[in-house]
Amino acid sequence: MVSKRNKKLLENLENIGNKVIKDFEKNKNPTIKIPSRTLSNVYFDEKKGMLALGDKMIDRNYFNLSQAKKFMQTLLIASKLKEVLQKGNTVGLRQLFYMSKHTLEGLEENTFDNQDESDPVVEDIEGLLDALREELGIFAATKGKMAGPLKIRDKGDLINTSKLGSSGYGIPSIVEDHAIQLEDHDAKFILVIEKEQMWNRLNEDKFWKKHNCIILTGKGQPARGDRRMVRRLHEELKLPVYVFTDMDIWGYYIYSVYKQGSINLAHFSTKAAVPDAKFLGFKTSDIKRFDIPKEHWIKMNKGDLKRIREIKDYDWFKNDKKWQKEFKALVKFGHKIEQDALVAKGIEFTSKDYLPVKIKEKDWID
Amino acid sequence: MVSKRNKKLLENLENIGNKVIKDFEKNKNPTIKIPSRTLSNVYFDEKKGMLALGDKMIDRNYFNLSQAKKFMQTLLIASKLKEVLQKGNTVGLRQLFYMSKHTLEGLEENTFDNQDESDPVVEDIEGLLDALREELGIFAATKGKMAGPLKIRDKGDLINTSKLGSSGYGIPSIVEDHAIQLEDHDAKFILVIEKEQMWNRLNEDKFWKKHNCIILTGKGQPARGDRRMVRRLHEELKLPVYVFTDMDIWGYYIYSVYKQGSINLAHFSTKAAVPDAKFLGFKTSDIKRFDIPKEHWIKMNKGDLKRIREIKDYDWFKNDKKWQKEFKALVKFGHKIEQDALVAKGIEFTSKDYLPVKIKEKDWID
Repeated sequence: MVSKRNKKLLENLENIGNKVIKDFEKNKNPTIKIPSRTLSNVYFDEKKGMLALGDKMIDRNYFNLSQAKKFMQTLLIASKLKEVLQKGNTVGLRQLFYMSKHTLEGLEENTFDNQDESDPVVEDIEGLLDALREELGIFAATKGKMAGPLKIRDKGDLINTSKLGSSGYGIPSIVEDHAIQLEDHDAKFILVIEKEQMWNRLNEDKFWKKHNCIILTGKGQPARGDRRMVRRLHEELKLPVYVFTDMDIWGYYIYSVYKQGSINLAHFSTKAAVPDAKFLGFKTSDIKRFDIPKEHWIKMNKGDLKRIREIKDYDWFKNDKKWQKEFKALVKFGHKIEQDALVAKGIEFTSKDYLPVKIKEKDWID
Repeated sequence: MVSKRNKKLLENLENIGNKVIKDFEKNKNPTIKIPSRTLSNVYFDEKKGMLALGDKMIDRNYFNLSQAKKFMQTLLIASKLKEVLQKGNTVGLRQLFYMSKHTLEGLEENTFDNQDESDPVVEDIEGLLDALREELGIFAATKGKMAGPLKIRDKGDLINTSKLGSSGYGIPSIVEDHAIQLEDHDAKFILVIEKEQMWNRLNEDKFWKKHNCIILTGKGQPARGDRRMVRRLHEELKLPVYVFTDMDIWGYYIYSVYKQGSINLAHFSTKAAVPDAKFLGFKTSDIKRFDIPKEHWIKMNKGDLKRIREIKDYDWFKNDKKWQKEFKALVKFGHKIEQDALVAKGIEFTSKDYLPVKIKEKDWID
C-alpha cells in the first residue's frame, strides 16, 4: 500500500518522465530543468538567517553530447527511486548506486562507474522534487546519538531516550516524520556537543537529568540526519539549541553548520538549519574565566589560521560584530582548546561547573 | 564506594607504585616489567585458535636516559587510572591524555605532547595488570550497532534490542559485565555484517525477527567494544557466529579479526576472539550460484593483490586448505564484489534469498 505522502512523491517522480515523453512527442529536445547547486547559486538569506539556493536552473538536454549521459542517469535514478517508494522500503546510497549500475546492451558503456556519479544525481532530484532523499527512502551512514527526557517513536517502536544506558539513541539517517515521531518530552533545551567523548562523559554524569535537557552529538561534522533531528527538536518541541564545541575554527564552523547550514548542501538548510542556535563555547573569554592551564593550549598551525581568514568573511559571519571580535581574539590567542581538556579540570567539571554557569548566565554568542 | 572488582584493580595499580618504592629503598634501579607487544612477541596459538602474546617482557628503567620519560609516563597514567577507578567514573582516551598532560615544574618539558604517547602506555598497563582498559573505565570512540530478540541491561537500564526501530542498539565502548549484562534472549545465532548499509537493509526487513537472530555490524573494521560484544554473545548465550562481509581481502581480514584477533591487539584476543566464527560469504562460489552480473564486479587493484599475498601467509590462514583455495579463486577471479551489490538483485534479495539459503545449507568456511 502506497501512503498519501509517497503517492504525491511518486506523481512528481512520474512527471519528470512524462515531461520527457511530451518533449519527444512534440519533437522538442527533451529537457530536465534542475536547480543549480553551484557556489554561484548559493546565497545567505539574511532574513531567514540561513543558506539558500537561488533561482538559477540548469537545463539537462537529451540531444547534447556533453549532457546525454547525465540526462540518462537522471531518469535512471528517478526510476529506481520510484521503485523504492512503491515498495515502501529504504535503501542506502551505495545500494542505489548498484541498483542503477548496469552495462548498456550491446555496448561496453556503464550507466554509472562510481558512486561519485550517482550521489550528485540524487541531490539533483532532491532539487527537482523539492524533497529530501530521506523522504524518498534513501539513507546514508549514521553518526550522531542523543539522550534525554524524550520519547521517540521510531518505525513503530516507542523509545525512551532517557532509558538507553551508556549507549543513547543512535540517530538514524532517515528521521523524517513519516519514520520518526517525537512524543512526550520534559526537556527545556537541547545541548549539541561536538565530540563523542564529551557526550559520553556528560551522559555518564546524567547531565540531561539534572538539567532537563536533551544532549546530542554529531561526532564532529554531523550527518544530515543529526542536523535534521536538531531542527525537528527545536521546531516541534520549541526548545532552544545551545552548541558546545572545541575552541577552534573547526568547532566554530560546525556550530555554523547547525545554525545556517553548509554551502554544499544549501538546499538542505530550509529543512535543517536552526538560525536561533546559540554558541555556548568553548570561547576565548572562557580561558581566563575557567583558568585553562597553558599546557592544555594547542598551538594553531597555518591551516587553522587560513581557515579563520576564510570563514570570518563568510556572509553570515562578516557583518556580525560579536563573531568578528571572537575571531580576532582567537587569532591573537594563537592557540586552540579542546572540549576534552576540560576533563583535566576535574572529571565532572564540565557537567557540574562549566556548563551550568554558562547556561545560567547566558554566556553565549547568538 | 569502591566495588570489589575495582578494589582488586586498585590494589594491582598500587602494586606498580609499591614495587618502584621498594626498588628505591633497596637502592636498586626502579624497574617496571611490561609484556612486550612487538610483532616478535605475537604468535598464533593453534590450540586456542587465536592470536596471543608470548612471554617476552621488557624492562622499563628509571635510571636509563632513553627510558626515564616512558617510565614516568607509565606511573603517571597508572595514577590517573587509579583516580578514575576510585571515583567510579569513566573517561575517554583523549580525556585521559589531558588529565595526564602537564608541564614539569621549573622545566619546559611536558609529560605528554600527543595522545600517540599516552594511548600505548594505556595498553602497556593493560598488559601489566592483565586487565582491559574498559575494565579500568577508559572508553574510546564507538562504532557498531545491533538488533534482535535480546534484552540488555546497560548501566541499570533494561533495553530490548528488538524495540529500537531503525536505530538499533549502539554498542558502547565499554561492554564489560560490570557495565552491561545480557538478560533474556530468544536468538539462535549471531549474524555479523561488515557494512552498515547492509545492516540497515536487514534491520528494515526484520531479518532478526524472521530468523530469530541478532544482527550486528562493526561498520567496517570493528571497534574493541563491538568485538568484545560478539564474544560475550557467543560465549554467554552459547550462540554460533556467522560473519558476512564483502567478497574482497579487506572483508576476509575483518572476518579474521572477529575470529582470531588482530596483530596489534594480540593481548585483546583472549577476551574478544571467537575461534568458532564461520565465514558465510560473500565468497567466490557465490558468484555463479547467485548470478552476480559482471557489471557489479569491481576490478582488483595492485593494493588488493598485495594484501592477498600477505594475508594468505598469515599463520592462521596458511595451513588452512579451504582458505588457501578461496584465496586462489579470488586471485583468479580478479574482481571484488560488495555486499551492497546484492541489493541490485532485489531490495529484499539478501534477507529473503541469499542469507536463508546460505545458513540452511551451512555454506560457509569455518
